[in-house]
Amino acid sequence: MSTFGTIFKVTTYGESHCKSVGCIVDGVPSNLEVTEEKLQVQLTRRRPGQSKLTTPRNEKDRVEIQSGTEFGKTLGTPIAMIVKNEDQRPHDYKGDGMNDFPRPSHADFTYLSKYDIKASSGGGRSSARETIGRVAAAGVAEIFLKKHCNMEIVAFTSQVGSVKMSSFENYNDSKEFQQILNTITREKVDAAGPIRCPDAKAALEMVDVINEYRGNHDSIGGVVTCVIRNIPVGLGEPCFDKLEALLAHAMLSIPASKGFEIGSGFAGVAIPGSKHNDPFVYDKENKRLRTSKNHSGGIQGGISNGEHIYFNVPFKSAATISQEQETCNYKGDEGVLAAKGRHDPCVVPRAIPIVEAMAALVMADAVLMQKTRQ
Amino acid sequence: MSTFGTIFKVTTYGESHCKSVGCIVDGVPSNLEVTEEKLQVQLTRRRPGQSKLTTPRNEKDRVEIQSGTEFGKTLGTPIAMIVKNEDQRPHDYKGDGMNDFPRPSHADFTYLSKYDIKASSGGGRSSARETIGRVAAAGVAEIFLKKHCNMEIVAFTSQVGSVKMSSFENYNDSKEFQQILNTITREKVDAAGPIRCPDAKAALEMVDVINEYRGNHDSIGGVVTCVIRNIPVGLGEPCFDKLEALLAHAMLSIPASKGFEIGSGFAGVAIPGSKHNDPFVYDKENKRLRTSKNHSGGIQGGISNGEHIYFNVPFKSAATISQEQETCNYKGDEGVLAAKGRHDPCVVPRAIPIVEAMAALVMADAVLMQKTRQ
Amino acid sequence: MSTFGTIFKVTTYGESHCKSVGCIVDGVPSNLEVTEEKLQVQLTRRRPGQSKLTTPRNEKDRVEIQSGTEFGKTLGTPIAMIVKNEDQRPHDYKGDGMNDFPRPSHADFTYLSKYDIKASSGGGRSSARETIGRVAAAGVAEIFLKKHCNMEIVAFTSQVGSVKMSSFENYNDSKEFQQILNTITREKVDAAGPIRCPDAKAALEMVDVINEYRGNHDSIGGVVTCVIRNIPVGLGEPCFDKLEALLAHAMLSIPASKGFEIGSGFAGVAIPGSKHNDPFVYDKENKRLRTSKNHSGGIQGGISNGEHIYFNVPFKSAATISQEQETCNYKGDEGVLAAKGRHDPCVVPRAIPIVEAMAALVMADAVLMQKTRQ
Amino acid sequence: MSTFGTIFKVTTYGESHCKSVGCIVDGVPSNLEVTEEKLQVQLTRRRPGQSKLTTPRNEKDRVEIQSGTEFGKTLGTPIAMIVKNEDQRPHDYKGDGMNDFPRPSHADFTYLSKYDIKASSGGGRSSARETIGRVAAAGVAEIFLKKHCNMEIVAFTSQVGSVKMSSFENYNDSKEFQQILNTITREKVDAAGPIRCPDAKAALEMVDVINEYRGNHDSIGGVVTCVIRNIPVGLGEPCFDKLEALLAHAMLSIPASKGFEIGSGFAGVAIPGSKHNDPFVYDKENKRLRTSKNHSGGIQGGISNGEHIYFNVPFKSAATISQEQETCNYKGDEGVLAAKGRHDPCVVPRAIPIVEAMAALVMADAVLMQKTRQ
Repeated sequence: MSTFGTIFKVTTYGESHCKSVGCIVDGVPSNLEVTEEKLQVQLTRRRPGQSKLTTPRNEKDRVEIQSGTEFGKTLGTPIAMIVKNEDQRPHDYKGDGMNDFPRPSHADFTYLSKYDIKASSGGGRSSARETIGRVAAAGVAEIFLKKHCNMEIVAFTSQVGSVKMSSFENYNDSKEFQQILNTITREKVDAAGPIRCPDAKAALEMVDVINEYRGNHDSIGGVVTCVIRNIPVGLGEPCFDKLEALLAHAMLSIPASKGFEIGSGFAGVAIPGSKHNDPFVYDKENKRLRTSKNHSGGIQGGISNGEHIYFNVPFKSAATISQEQETCNYKGDEGVLAAKGRHDPCVVPRAIPIVEAMAALVMADAVLMQKTRQ
Repeated sequence: MSTFGTIFKVTTYGESHCKSVGCIVDGVPSNLEVTEEKLQVQLTRRRPGQSKLTTPRNEKDRVEIQSGTEFGKTLGTPIAMIVKNEDQRPHDYKGDGMNDFPRPSHADFTYLSKYDIKASSGGGRSSARETIGRVAAAGVAEIFLKKHCNMEIVAFTSQVGSVKMSSFENYNDSKEFQQILNTITREKVDAAGPIRCPDAKAALEMVDVINEYRGNHDSIGGVVTCVIRNIPVGLGEPCFDKLEALLAHAMLSIPASKGFEIGSGFAGVAIPGSKHNDPFVYDKENKRLRTSKNHSGGIQGGISNGEHIYFNVPFKSAATISQEQETCNYKGDEGVLAAKGRHDPCVVPRAIPIVEAMAALVMADAVLMQKTRQ
Repeated sequence: MSTFGTIFKVTTYGESHCKSVGCIVDGVPSNLEVTEEKLQVQLTRRRPGQSKLTTPRNEKDRVEIQSGTEFGKTLGTPIAMIVKNEDQRPHDYKGDGMNDFPRPSHADFTYLSKYDIKASSGGGRSSARETIGRVAAAGVAEIFLKKHCNMEIVAFTSQVGSVKMSSFENYNDSKEFQQILNTITREKVDAAGPIRCPDAKAALEMVDVINEYRGNHDSIGGVVTCVIRNIPVGLGEPCFDKLEALLAHAMLSIPASKGFEIGSGFAGVAIPGSKHNDPFVYDKENKRLRTSKNHSGGIQGGISNGEHIYFNVPFKSAATISQEQETCNYKGDEGVLAAKGRHDPCVVPRAIPIVEAMAALVMADAVLMQKTRQ
Repeated sequence: MSTFGTIFKVTTYGESHCKSVGCIVDGVPSNLEVTEEKLQVQLTRRRPGQSKLTTPRNEKDRVEIQSGTEFGKTLGTPIAMIVKNEDQRPHDYKGDGMNDFPRPSHADFTYLSKYDIKASSGGGRSSARETIGRVAAAGVAEIFLKKHCNMEIVAFTSQVGSVKMSSFENYNDSKEFQQILNTITREKVDAAGPIRCPDAKAALEMVDVINEYRGNHDSIGGVVTCVIRNIPVGLGEPCFDKLEALLAHAMLSIPASKGFEIGSGFAGVAIPGSKHNDPFVYDKENKRLRTSKNHSGGIQGGISNGEHIYFNVPFKSAATISQEQETCNYKGDEGVLAAKGRHDPCVVPRAIPIVEAMAALVMADAVLMQKTRQ
């Protein structure tokens, strides 16, 4: 469904070619300082047309708060937010028979099968534009998390095609990677250029890779890494709503994502328990237990232990490419499809604020849920 | 929380050392042929003590249906199921100061932090024993899915430590791996021996690896692959409850799992769109569109396309090991911990029916949700 | 929270003095013929300023569909709807110290206590204006219910002050009342004039009563009766979500409502079982069981039996009156409050489309839930 | 469905003739002192066979806690509770053709229609026995509410047939009734004898009425009044989950209930606003605003204002009577039905702990929800 969260609850609406996209955020604590200006920051980072690495579709994506705030403060009532679809071009996908072909690995076919009606956008709510409502809602979540515990959420590009940040290669053994997790900020990520990879050398190679695929009317995928810092101990609801389960749910709900791994992840399965376990040490300054390593990725038994949470999310190469593809149309006739319209050669850089957004929604809800335990 | 699903709704209870574990399953269609015998099959596959590869804890784990069926048929009302904790040993973890130490990478510390009370089992609901309720509930789900569309769900061990099934090594390019996905059954999986890996050569190596770590009082992790076949087109609820998002949520809720990848997964990010896309072909026999490849893993835009769904779940090496570990106790004093009690050197083989169970719960709910669209 | 329903799921937002009010409706079946024109009908019936019996606040209340439809058909995706607050006057309640007084029996005090912030509208979401989103959403629900089973929902005024429709006086024994339930339509209700009572004699008296209270700067309450016809057998989800429980929940969520009774209701407790029971008879034409009476109000054991559902909802006299009231301000100082602004002397006539709306939301969700049983 | 609540979440199972009935309670705060002995008190008050006023079915109804507590304290994990169906007689309803007749105004017909299967208990989950799980769960809720704010919940019989407590006759004008609400306790209620009416004179008449109907193999209904005291200001979630809406939902989910009215209720509609409004006064001792009257019933705008919450719930005369009834069987053939088995001539006295239970579940959830606002 289109609602996410139990207490901090977001409902989104809208697709590529309707009047507007947006959301209603319910369960927001009152007296938060929420303004359109603050929310705009991440929406602008998400916006297409920021560089030739991403789609040239040009929209202002200005968020308009409809309700739930007065004089810049939240009232505790639902916050509705709207972003108009100014640059909508509902006929882009028509003509030339392209409309007769379900785009391979896109959602045209499955949406038609599920709903028995064909929207002009084809893939309906699978559009990246749907994520605007999430990012707007997450802006509110982040203001809450900042106020509550100074929580920080930062995502960055760690891999494009087969080019990885050098420290990402064997990240379970890399102190450099842990150092990045400790210190990375959104400012540093954006300073790294539109590719948003904080490893300068890898960043250059990644740009080359993307340019090469764009030149071929093709596309390529990559991996986003995200770290969350300043997390209270005790978040997460066993047994089905373990904190990592909610994060996985959130990340796999982002268009084009194909997976999720937390802490040591897939590579960690080959590390024996004696090395994988994170021993406890005493943090005298803060008078609490910490762990000397963090293979767990900040969560044990589904509950945060206060260490950084970090995880990786792979994004496939974009399905919509201008290159000709042999496929068949809805009737089953074979043919050749070459997509028109505006396409991302690589969705990874723009996925970054969306990954941060979904992480923020999970964490805000987890913090509010834990309040019921106190 | 302890409830999973929207229509087919499972609520579980119980931990290692209480009177019983179990569940209530709500939203079950009526007139399904459900008996304790049928449900016992997967519970027995999950049961410890089946081989020396897993924990020697010996329990009968007999499921007792309390309600919701009469004369072997479901009434449409909630089905409560109970499995007694016959072999409970609540004092195992006491004495020798072990109780003073939160076990590294286990849930002792986080549970105490969250709930401000220490259960004798330490990690409370993070116990593998909690999964019994899930497996019992999933037995009902599978009977429904079998009747509805002959759906089949089969999981197997694809990696232990760094030993992989040969076809799993580069599975995106392996026709052999696709062939396994097409034909594997639970019978074949169990015929492969207690390691439950259908690649005989790899299976032998995996057993060696596990034995080696057991010998060292250590543990090791691995990967479970799961395939779901005979899936109706149209399952999954955009945008937050995409089918892969629900599966990821389900898998990351299993104790010790560290990730999830569907279809081409993490490795797929390096495959360009032109090769990654799954072109449509016409299936004359069944008069419907199919795809000639399946990098998507059976889901596009969050909705099933009728191809096999397949995914991988990594499980970390078990946290509880008998080897001595340097850590500190709850007070912050350094010390050495050596766990007593009964432990799995590798949780992967026993995780298999649990992965199948969680997949079944997701699919049963998705089928019922889609009925509201028809 | 601000969401209602499990499958047909409505989330509303907005209060009296923000930019707009509205809703998102999720879970809507596709291919329904939904247009702004159709939805406007009930919004206009709900609109203030229709007669001097209700508040003179004058607004156009035009609904604007933002998403989820194309070319007049639903896509199966969320439908967002907006109604601008054109005539908002956020300063009406300020000055003259009125702002310092929590209005007696209004929500000013409780909202401030709950959220620790004072909105200019005082009672925040307790405003009648909040119901616009419900009525818009219910328009979609009604189009679905009409198409699904020709379901009809009609509410009318049965009591104002102590003036009752004559057949309502002892409705459990009145064949005339049953006849009204069988035949009443919205057209007949509106033809009865702005009081919306289909008993002409009582209607005149009711208007007199309201005019009298308006003259005294006072207010008065009343009762709305609602009937639902053409209901499939089998709707309602035991045990907590019995159909009457959902209806009661829905009705008590309407501002100013104080109760709910279904079928024989409060008066029915004095009828012995031998007379209260509704015997079964065989309906040869439709080849199914019916009941010869309907004390049950169309629901038995929480599940619809196919007979008409009918229920009564009492609305208290409006809390906001222009008459002076002795009370005390937030600081606890005694004083006299005389409300300015625009007020309904009797909310009952305008409550009618809202009662119908909430009934439609319950029934649409119940129909979709029951689809999961088939 | 069979789950109630958002945070304090109860799932019940079981019907008259299965192995056991019970529940799982999730979201329970940890460190509450919960024992079987404490929970047994209300279960025993609910138990049949306490006097000849109610059904002679004799069961011990001993609750057994399965999980979620250790050494008498809650762990914060789900509490499962079981009550065995010791005196089950699954064949009682068979033979004599009675099984062929759907009992008038009972749930036999609707259950069969909904689920397409006939349980031996006929009405499935509509059985009063289903409420055991609710009462057990509410025992936990009450321990929490007592600890949190010393909340008190007391219900009593205010009407049987047409016999009312004298102060209940015009309760909106009765200081005596308010006095009862202020001072009534469960001890006083039980001291009033099995009828549980604190007005001695009315109690005698009520007993006479019930005896008369029992003598005639008939049944009669009545009204339960419930008061909740010591309520924090600020409970309740606008707009759909207003506190009175949740209470109405809860009460209408009890078998045989036909309505709900809060505060001034149905009779209050004839009181003009100038008299109906509850003016504020300053409570110097507790330094907070109070109201000098309480027509609101302790809730304004869906949020508790700290005054007593009180409401009435009508219960119809029991549907199952031994008297012969002319009706028709499932096939449509006319015939005469005389129920065997064990029946309550009046369900009101036994409904009292159930009304208290459902009120406790609503309040516990509301308290936990409000914690997320703080």
